[in-house]
Amino acid sequence: MKEVPGEPPRRHRRDPEGHRAAILEAARHAFAERGYARTTLRDIARRAGVTHGLISRHFSSKERLFLAAVPGNRDLERIVAGDPATLPDRIAHGFVQRMETDAVNDPLVALLRSAASDERTAAHLLVAMQESSVAVYRSVLSPDAPGEPGDDLDTRIALLGSHLMGVTFSRYIARTEPLASMPPERLTEHLTRTLRHILFD
Amino acid sequence: MKEVPGEPPRRHRRDPEGHRAAILEAARHAFAERGYARTTLRDIARRAGVTHGLISRHFSSKERLFLAAVPGNRDLERIVAGDPATLPDRIAHGFVQRMETDAVNDPLVALLRSAASDERTAAHLLVAMQESSVAVYRSVLSPDAPGEPGDDLDTRIALLGSHLMGVTFSRYIARTEPLASMPPERLTEHLTRTLRHILFD
Repeated sequence: MKEVPGEPPRRHRRDPEGHRAAILEAARHAFAERGYARTTLRDIARRAGVTHGLISRHFSSKERLFLAAVPGNRDLERIVAGDPATLPDRIAHGFVQRMETDAVNDPLVALLRSAASDERTAAHLLVAMQESSVAVYRSVLSPDAPGEPGDDLDTRIALLGSHLMGVTFSRYIARTEPLASMPPERLTEHLTRTLRHILFD
Repeated sequence: MKEVPGEPPRRHRRDPEGHRAAILEAARHAFAERGYARTTLRDIARRAGVTHGLISRHFSSKERLFLAAVPGNRDLERIVAGDPATLPDRIAHGFVQRMETDAVNDPLVALLRSAASDERTAAHLLVAMQESSVAVYRSVLSPDAPGEPGDDLDTRIALLGSHLMGVTFSRYIARTEPLASMPPERLTEHLTRTLRHILFD
């Protein structure tokens, strides 16, 4: 939304959906740039051009704002829904598409950076997010589905998450080759293959 | 080595091997605690109880000291040497054994933390280390060995490295369950299985 110089931007007065979107976008950028712990609601308010109070009205805490800014369980549920046999394809495709769109501003990347550099809150938040993802995966991968080892299901889901975090780190954070400059389609193929083995082996 | 109060510790005068070991141990702790960029040779000298000049005599730069402190290519060569068919078992076993021994002070963990939190030097160093590991893996996994896809070899090695980094992150840094409290033997089994698929699928 373009702002007219000299006039308060319209969304500030009568566009709650516009506010919400502006706050979420500002939050994604701020978390990505400064990490979870060092980002304040005040930073985000300034970036979004709204008041601190308005943020509080939309999101009750920094943690809630963060969770809202992360591509959430609703996206994951959409990706995960469907035939379990082709789940690895959908996860690989969804992951690559999301990261290729905007890895630098991805809140999960921010959280990975923050948790790695010893921010305890970030690590806890990451754990919480992983646990809620596990619940979504479990809804499709029921332990009694054929060909899936019940006991190990949580472990397999955790290894899948670890694999995606490792690839995120190599390709989008440290940018090591050959992963960093691999075409997205090739990466999707490799991930599909590996995730399939991790889940169904 | 015990130090006698009031006397300079013996190793300082006539134990170059003792110096070297003390410097390396101090370096591992310092890098692990403070990350790569924020650690100075002066910190390390103080911890090791030696002079800055002595460190320079043993290691010409911080980068070289870091590389010497990392479980290096010699360890990796020892692990990798042998039948390619059982390489995944050896890598999984070597990795778990090393991390279980002292993940908190492992220089690779330090580098992973530092690179994640946006230290460019650390990211470059990580890239350099990965490249030298790739050379070691390639020495065993020749592209024309049966059952191994030549073109993809570097990609597979990179995915293997990413998987190990992701697991390191989950189990030893963010400590997410169920990986964090899995018995080492179980983790070794899972890694062996996954690494086998990543390399040989």
